[in-house]
Amino acid sequence: MTLTLYSMPSSGNSCKVRLMLGLLDRTYSHVGLEYETPELADAHTTGALAMGKVPVLILDDGTALPESNAILCYLADGTSWMPSDALGRARTLGWVFFEQNRHETVIAVRAALQNYESRAHLATPQRMVELLDSGHRVLRVMEDHLADQAWLAGDTPSVADIALYACTHTAGSQGGFEMHRFAAINDWLARISALPGYIELDDIPT
Amino acid sequence: MTLTLYSMPSSGNSCKVRLMLGLLDRTYSHVGLEYETPELADAHTTGALAMGKVPVLILDDGTALPESNAILCYLADGTSWMPSDALGRARTLGWVFFEQNRHETVIAVRAALQNYESRAHLATPQRMVELLDSGHRVLRVMEDHLADQAWLAGDTPSVADIALYACTHTAGSQGGFEMHRFAAINDWLARISALPGYIELDDIPT
Repeated sequence: MTLTLYSMPSSGNSCKVRLMLGLLDRTYSHVGLEYETPELADAHTTGALAMGKVPVLILDDGTALPESNAILCYLADGTSWMPSDALGRARTLGWVFFEQNRHETVIAVRAALQNYESRAHLATPQRMVELLDSGHRVLRVMEDHLADQAWLAGDTPSVADIALYACTHTAGSQGGFEMHRFAAINDWLARISALPGYIELDDIPT
Repeated sequence: MTLTLYSMPSSGNSCKVRLMLGLLDRTYSHVGLEYETPELADAHTTGALAMGKVPVLILDDGTALPESNAILCYLADGTSWMPSDALGRARTLGWVFFEQNRHETVIAVRAALQNYESRAHLATPQRMVELLDSGHRVLRVMEDHLADQAWLAGDTPSVADIALYACTHTAGSQGGFEMHRFAAINDWLARISALPGYIELDDIPT
């Protein structure tokens, strides 16, 4: 199947899809749509971005699949990255929902406020402190869980690990979170980056 | 299977699970943990709430399943509420991720700022206007999609509809959103409330 991915090089939501494709050794065409570029504006205007955001995966029959984690689930379906039993799937998805609701909205948002010039006016001292505290609480939920187990859901790596890897991996460098406080998370990050097929997040296909 | 649900009567994330259980005609024991009550504090202290939030579904072997949408997916697995093919599942999950990332964080958050006295200090005029505008944009995504189809994902109702029903249903009354602008959403809400087994969101089991 020929796959085309619209993704944003600087975005964690896009990075996780490129990482999943790499780990699954899938080939695909890549269309980069960076934040605040004319190319991204054009894609919005032409309706190429179903549900209005990148990433979007285009299947070979033209079907457009939006939402980063839905793309992960689609790619993982039928592989070891998504459990085949109902309870295993639900436990895995629990972490993926956690990522979109509690993690991305704090960890990625703080990184964006720190790194995108156009959002700097929203980065008030009070907001940045609140996001720092909230992010440390979110990371603590992961730390406590990973203290007992190598992977977030089950005995092997799953879409839960990939969904949470992208923005956790850059939480220190881009978001200013104090990652030295989270030893189990750091070990888990190292395990992911040692997986066969791992690609660096800034390794953008040309 | 004997199910026990820890849920918060006033919360949309909890409501959606009670609604799904009703639509599936499942019986369960209910433990109500209302916001800012000693019962909720106790549940946090004793570790009854995996991942630190309600709702949590307890299976008959004691397994605790957290995250509202993961519970929906578990209950729906193998029923008509969750497609059985990989692409159908992914498209359905796309809307469920959209709910946790873009909808709940705006629509439910504005309702909470308006209705919980302890959060009133966060409801600055600027924040409330921003949330109103963001919420209307999120509702527009749903409106445009529902203009062409009866249900969010596929030809029949799915977990996507249930996940998004709870906080959309109360977006006007609790969140102050201008629901008269969204005719297709209102028709869709009416279709859901006409489904066999539908329960009102304030119909809390005793």
